[in-house]
Amino acid sequence: MNKNNDNEQQIFLGIDGGGSKCRAILYTQESGVLAEAVSGPANVLRGAAKAQKHIVEATDDALKIAGLSPECKGQLVAGIGLAGLNLESCMTEMEAWAHPFKAAFFTTDLHIACAGAHGGEDGAVMIIGTGSSALICQQEQLTEMGGHGFPVGDAGSGAWLGFKTIELTLQAMDNIAASTEFTNAVIEQYKVTNAIGLAQLVSGFTPTDFGKLAPLVVQFAKQKNPQALAIMQQGADYLSSLAKQLLADSQLPLSLIGGLSPLMQEYLAAGVVAKLKEPQQPPEIGAVLFAQRQLAKSKV
Amino acid sequence: MNKNNDNEQQIFLGIDGGGSKCRAILYTQESGVLAEAVSGPANVLRGAAKAQKHIVEATDDALKIAGLSPECKGQLVAGIGLAGLNLESCMTEMEAWAHPFKAAFFTTDLHIACAGAHGGEDGAVMIIGTGSSALICQQEQLTEMGGHGFPVGDAGSGAWLGFKTIELTLQAMDNIAASTEFTNAVIEQYKVTNAIGLAQLVSGFTPTDFGKLAPLVVQFAKQKNPQALAIMQQGADYLSSLAKQLLADSQLPLSLIGGLSPLMQEYLAAGVVAKLKEPQQPPEIGAVLFAQRQLAKSKV
Repeated sequence: MNKNNDNEQQIFLGIDGGGSKCRAILYTQESGVLAEAVSGPANVLRGAAKAQKHIVEATDDALKIAGLSPECKGQLVAGIGLAGLNLESCMTEMEAWAHPFKAAFFTTDLHIACAGAHGGEDGAVMIIGTGSSALICQQEQLTEMGGHGFPVGDAGSGAWLGFKTIELTLQAMDNIAASTEFTNAVIEQYKVTNAIGLAQLVSGFTPTDFGKLAPLVVQFAKQKNPQALAIMQQGADYLSSLAKQLLADSQLPLSLIGGLSPLMQEYLAAGVVAKLKEPQQPPEIGAVLFAQRQLAKSKV
Repeated sequence: MNKNNDNEQQIFLGIDGGGSKCRAILYTQESGVLAEAVSGPANVLRGAAKAQKHIVEATDDALKIAGLSPECKGQLVAGIGLAGLNLESCMTEMEAWAHPFKAAFFTTDLHIACAGAHGGEDGAVMIIGTGSSALICQQEQLTEMGGHGFPVGDAGSGAWLGFKTIELTLQAMDNIAASTEFTNAVIEQYKVTNAIGLAQLVSGFTPTDFGKLAPLVVQFAKQKNPQALAIMQQGADYLSSLAKQLLADSQLPLSLIGGLSPLMQEYLAAGVVAKLKEPQQPPEIGAVLFAQRQLAKSKV
């Protein structure tokens, strides 16, 4: 009984870290979500130290909101789902972290998204945010697809949509693609006067920077601009192929996660749309579910 | 007479610096090329200090080959054509260099390639090497197109061919593109066992690293592999558009430069091929021609 009581009062930290931000929640079985906070990017592929810094920042902010001191970090059991942790070298780096928590369990951002979306049950998820990737969780077996990192991977993501848009706009500025209201809006947005200026501006662009163009692509696709539509459809076709291959013969539901999901949905293949199910809980709750399961396993 | 004599004995340094190497020649009007040497990459966009280091290295090697001491650098008049110098910020960085030469004149790699190809006369060039770009030189007016930097620009280049190949291979490893002898050869080349391994390997790839895959694309395109052919043709179509727009109404000849030129030529549009002319001299001689013209101007 005492053990159950402990577990009910244990404060869990759920972390969802991706290419553009890191979200933290504090959670107890008894009271649900106590507080939530957001900090900067936490994609381990772009630097473990930066990810760790943003995890701690978001946690401290959440503790403050909950009326708790930063010292309370030592009492938290953390479930930490991060972009990049599908790479063994990134996972090794994170596991070597002298973290400030009572316990920390690491997994991918995809895994906690899946756990949240299906309340810990079997299912599949596809993330369409700054990056793109997909995962199916079947009888504790995780199979991941896509998400190989921008720019060679992550087609259909916000960063990729922005990338294709810059590629097109540079060609329009060289008069080898049509100049339209869409390409003119890009030029307007960056206030550049020639292709060299735009090339120089984007030479240091991060995936997040490219991703900031995604709303413009969506807007012009809605207005039926053929160039914006072509980019959206090419991205969606990739994502549809990814989803079909992921689900293959299984009858499991698929949840879409990430800021671009609602906007990309109408461009997906009908066979994929038929399998869609609204996510039950957000990824950060999935991170808590993951931590609870790992904690239970470690006590057996 | 004395001035002419001076000019005949003046040693000129011609530098051609690009994304994968820096070539230096020593040249006098009287004796022609005295020596030549090659060092590492000298694309200013990837770092002015690195470019400067490789310029000096190649020069010292050339001096050694010519039986001259490194101190002779102070007597050289240098024509220096570098990738990245189309960007104003890069040109400013290079012009601020406390260089070790008697005089140094900076311009783009494209400009010296054009000067060399057409012996200082009007004409156009398209570089197809690690990067891709084009220039037309008409009545001392330079108009540049393409070359906006990998990966948003430089389509049809070696880096771009490699990039498209990795993109395809990752999709083949996820079973959303066909696995063929071509994609298998890529996997074989890198000795990776899954898509995550390949993604991790290429996450730090430079344009030069991607460019190393170009020969494989060319080889499989020759063997009529449809995937390799599609990548080659997509790159060539971009380059054909660039050339057509560049030459527009002019009747000037076009020279192709760079390691991929002879391999890419058969995929270019017939209208472009009809305007092709073998380059007369290599870019490093063009750099000397440029330095001679600038020196003459400065003495007027």
